[in-house]
Amino acid sequence: MTITITVFERSLDEGRGLARDMRVRWALAEVGQPYEVRLVPWEAFKEPAHLARNPFGQIPTYEEGDLTLFESGAIVFHIAERFPGLLPKDVDARARAIMWMFAALSTVEPPIIDREIVEYVEGGKSWQGERFAMVDERIRARLNQLSARLGDAEWLDGAFSAADITMVHVLRRLEGSGLLEEYPNLSAYIARAEARPAYKRAFAAQLAVFEANRG
Amino acid sequence: MTITITVFERSLDEGRGLARDMRVRWALAEVGQPYEVRLVPWEAFKEPAHLARNPFGQIPTYEEGDLTLFESGAIVFHIAERFPGLLPKDVDARARAIMWMFAALSTVEPPIIDREIVEYVEGGKSWQGERFAMVDERIRARLNQLSARLGDAEWLDGAFSAADITMVHVLRRLEGSGLLEEYPNLSAYIARAEARPAYKRAFAAQLAVFEANRG
Repeated sequence: MTITITVFERSLDEGRGLARDMRVRWALAEVGQPYEVRLVPWEAFKEPAHLARNPFGQIPTYEEGDLTLFESGAIVFHIAERFPGLLPKDVDARARAIMWMFAALSTVEPPIIDREIVEYVEGGKSWQGERFAMVDERIRARLNQLSARLGDAEWLDGAFSAADITMVHVLRRLEGSGLLEEYPNLSAYIARAEARPAYKRAFAAQLAVFEANRG
Repeated sequence: MTITITVFERSLDEGRGLARDMRVRWALAEVGQPYEVRLVPWEAFKEPAHLARNPFGQIPTYEEGDLTLFESGAIVFHIAERFPGLLPKDVDARARAIMWMFAALSTVEPPIIDREIVEYVEGGKSWQGERFAMVDERIRARLNQLSARLGDAEWLDGAFSAADITMVHVLRRLEGSGLLEEYPNLSAYIARAEARPAYKRAFAAQLAVFEANRG
């Protein structure tokens, strides 16, 4: 059954693989599944055809037969349930991997997204600097805790899993902020993930879309 | 096997059931599972005993035999996988229910939490009013989309599921903001959920902790 994902026709990150389709591409690459890509231009995100796929008008979406999914976390989890290799077989280890996916999206990512709001939406406000300091404090609190738990482990909980795909990509959204550099073990964790052949294939695939559509 | 959850000894919401243990209590009540409660005082959240359960120092946590979980989303999902009644049996419907859990936590909840930050952390800042307006605009965008998708359906996707537990509780965090009242179908959705016997049992259980520890 053909898998089709929806991605930005022109990603704002200029091919750096920070948009959330990268998580889905990476998961599909890890399990060796080919997929089709539907490019959505900016002006089409609020149109009925896209809102039928995702009522929140975001990317990525995932279609496979009669199933349509949105939310990168749910899509990565679906791929991990549907194809072997991204979730442990042991029941408790599986529950912990899923827990780390939720932790990445519910606990680690929100202040990182808030930082992007400070950067892009609150630009020009007199209080932007003060807000940056406040949100960076919240991000550092999470990175301190994550760094302490990870220690010198290779992955979050035993073998590489869907949890690492999610967490690494969430952390990558801090690239350019200077914050990741304060945590050598988190930087090394990201570098280990980026060295995986599946990561490289997924990254190249999203970069190719950017290069073809930069216009 | 005994289930133990960790909750605030004294919740800041004064028994209104807004802390995230409510989601877990409600899920356990829906599947008819008894549980033990460990009360954690404020000063103990950064102590090693609690950080071993949750490296981010938050509640709730869930213990069952050798398994320890944190993240309310992951715990509700675990309960829904472990006991029947909270996830559809049909494979596609199950994937969509899980998708709505992620949507509640990744897309709907973050601006709502940001509103709490504006209210409690940015109190006294000259720009608090402007930030309220900005965050309320983000919340309304999500509520507009959610309201449009829900329409006059009873639950998010077919039968009541773990997705509704998660979404309803996320929306309840807006109580007192005046925002929910702008959306009659979302208000009715929350009211339907609150009328469930399992919800009432869970609400009473968390209220009893507050009453016993208000000191």
